[in-house]
Amino acid sequence: MFKINDNYLKLPGSYLFSTIAKKVAAFEKANPDKKIIRLGIGDVTLPLAPAVITALHTAVDEMGGKNSFKGYAPDQGYEFLRRAIIDNDFKTRGVELDLDEVFVSDGSKSDAANIGDIFSVDNKIGVCDPVYPVYVDSNAMSGRAGSYVAETERWDNLIYMPCKEENGFAPEFPQEVPDIIYLCFPNNPTGSTIKKDQLQEWVDFANKNKSVIIYDAAYEAYISEADVPHSIYECEGAKTCAIEMRSFSKNAGFTGTRLAYTIVPKDLLCGGVSVNGLWARRHGTKFNGAPYIIQKAGEAVYSEEGKKQTAEQVAYYMKNAKLIREGLAEAGYSVSGGINAPYIWLKTPNNMTSWEFFDHLLEKANVVGTPGSGFGPNGEGYFRLTAFGSYENTVAALDRIKKL
Amino acid sequence: MFKINDNYLKLPGSYLFSTIAKKVAAFEKANPDKKIIRLGIGDVTLPLAPAVITALHTAVDEMGGKNSFKGYAPDQGYEFLRRAIIDNDFKTRGVELDLDEVFVSDGSKSDAANIGDIFSVDNKIGVCDPVYPVYVDSNAMSGRAGSYVAETERWDNLIYMPCKEENGFAPEFPQEVPDIIYLCFPNNPTGSTIKKDQLQEWVDFANKNKSVIIYDAAYEAYISEADVPHSIYECEGAKTCAIEMRSFSKNAGFTGTRLAYTIVPKDLLCGGVSVNGLWARRHGTKFNGAPYIIQKAGEAVYSEEGKKQTAEQVAYYMKNAKLIREGLAEAGYSVSGGINAPYIWLKTPNNMTSWEFFDHLLEKANVVGTPGSGFGPNGEGYFRLTAFGSYENTVAALDRIKKL
Repeated sequence: MFKINDNYLKLPGSYLFSTIAKKVAAFEKANPDKKIIRLGIGDVTLPLAPAVITALHTAVDEMGGKNSFKGYAPDQGYEFLRRAIIDNDFKTRGVELDLDEVFVSDGSKSDAANIGDIFSVDNKIGVCDPVYPVYVDSNAMSGRAGSYVAETERWDNLIYMPCKEENGFAPEFPQEVPDIIYLCFPNNPTGSTIKKDQLQEWVDFANKNKSVIIYDAAYEAYISEADVPHSIYECEGAKTCAIEMRSFSKNAGFTGTRLAYTIVPKDLLCGGVSVNGLWARRHGTKFNGAPYIIQKAGEAVYSEEGKKQTAEQVAYYMKNAKLIREGLAEAGYSVSGGINAPYIWLKTPNNMTSWEFFDHLLEKANVVGTPGSGFGPNGEGYFRLTAFGSYENTVAALDRIKKL
Repeated sequence: MFKINDNYLKLPGSYLFSTIAKKVAAFEKANPDKKIIRLGIGDVTLPLAPAVITALHTAVDEMGGKNSFKGYAPDQGYEFLRRAIIDNDFKTRGVELDLDEVFVSDGSKSDAANIGDIFSVDNKIGVCDPVYPVYVDSNAMSGRAGSYVAETERWDNLIYMPCKEENGFAPEFPQEVPDIIYLCFPNNPTGSTIKKDQLQEWVDFANKNKSVIIYDAAYEAYISEADVPHSIYECEGAKTCAIEMRSFSKNAGFTGTRLAYTIVPKDLLCGGVSVNGLWARRHGTKFNGAPYIIQKAGEAVYSEEGKKQTAEQVAYYMKNAKLIREGLAEAGYSVSGGINAPYIWLKTPNNMTSWEFFDHLLEKANVVGTPGSGFGPNGEGYFRLTAFGSYENTVAALDRIKKL
């Protein structure tokens, strides 16, 4: 008789964004005349850049030609894309990488969730609180999180690193040393970042304790300040302790186009075994490459035109971020984020819970955001707004919020 | 200190296709004047159908438009594609499915490898021998296969179901009942199929024993005989015991375009728990949807034009298959497959091992095939040729083989 993976049954049922969707749908039904503005989910809205569109058309034509058609892609991705990644995202920051340290994939969500495959179930996991739910859920599914305790809203075998106003939303070294540490900077959901010397301390901590850092840099393109690291490999010694994930979703609007990559340095060893080799094996056995035409689209992001056009998109969103941040501050809210990230993290007023504020904002301003408590217990009393809406909607939303 | 997943270290090192690639490269270097014909890897060669190319261009333009741009896709895939799948692949065969029983993904390799996530590590796995290596390797990685024994070339905790000439390359019910049974029909690598009444026996066996069948129907489009089932759900009771995987790779040439789907019926339960719900959770947490433009390409496969054009491609390859099968038989080889599948499985002559025949064919005919032993110990003494080459190359290869 077959048996299911019981760890799945431990996952708490309701999911943040589906609850939001239900609440919004109910409000819309009851108030068909109200125009709702959504600043909740982290999905982009601007169309793909012209350089990307041109590259896609060209690649589609190749797929239709007898001599230019492409079958299975190389396991780790086409060399043209991996070369462009290394030259543009790393060499420019003084980081040298080999081609076989780059793994092209269909998304950072997949990579962040699948990376656990190559590690033992016995590892103790450290996550920030609040946190992007995929790190937690994927570890819960594989049995690393222990049991979910409804009263504390926490898994009993995870190490939580609170990110609160008091510590500038930056995690502190936990008392119990995690074997695997998930860090995401610029951060989702808080929009916070840490400086290079702070990240260096995490690298030193990991190397000293033989921990591995899973570094999610999906929002790297939004960094505007000079002393914020774009890659963890800018820190000394990171190649012996860190895996870095990057996505084309937020810097080039690929949320519905799907392309990402993960760096696993060959210097990252466990008892002499190369973690790079394990991920290569995983990639080769359980994945069959990203589509050729999408990889060509990714290459176009690194063309001169592509870089210019996608930088303009990021600037557009960051103009929204500035608007939200400054508008909220003006209205008396305590806000962070929005300077090196497309997320603004605000403290709910009058000691409202995150969900109370969600309802308040939906009902009174017809604006949808994301309750901070959905990202973990230390997100309670906070609220996330995103800069991915249109400028016009963002202006309108802020006007409504200011009038509350 | 972090720990790796030790199961990865049990995997035997060298990989079938990389060994082939090395041997071919060495031969090419030593014999630069010889023109090698590759009938080895199961990769398609015809360009994407015109209807698919048109759909891709249209979808690319949508991604470049302010009001038609698409961000994150629905978790399980766009409804237009799932609807087309149900109407064309199932309703036409008398199988009713609900929309939420269809999960669109980036490939059957991913699905076949990832499906293990939702099952306990304690399940006993049954696989055919020879077998598509992904079923074995993915279970080995998760610890279900036990240890690899070099002498027997087998994992000590798998149940092997030999597929040999004596049983028409169809597996027989194993003495020890597997909890999870992987079946692939039409089969890779043997090209064999089973009739509907034979598949019904497997469904009955699974239901009786509360086993689950992972049914890989990637080569369904190549079925030419009337009594061969296209879907396992044509069998009575299959919805309570079977998961079916389908791919766009071989029926529409999507190996480098990446699209597939998996059916998990809501009637498939384990102790009252819906397996469909588990896979939905896995899909939602560890995957972020197939690209919009690729899903539109998949939809076009089901258009009138698309069906006609892709059927012509399949016919083209099957003409090759016939050529290989009949040519080899004429030359005195014992062959099977090639009637309902693009693979021809031949018995090596003169008691040669699979690799001896590989070398023989490479050196004397400059033709590359795949040694049967690479798919499992019961593949020893067999050899796989594929119908995915060009017609001209297939003719030339057969001429050379006949002259041996």
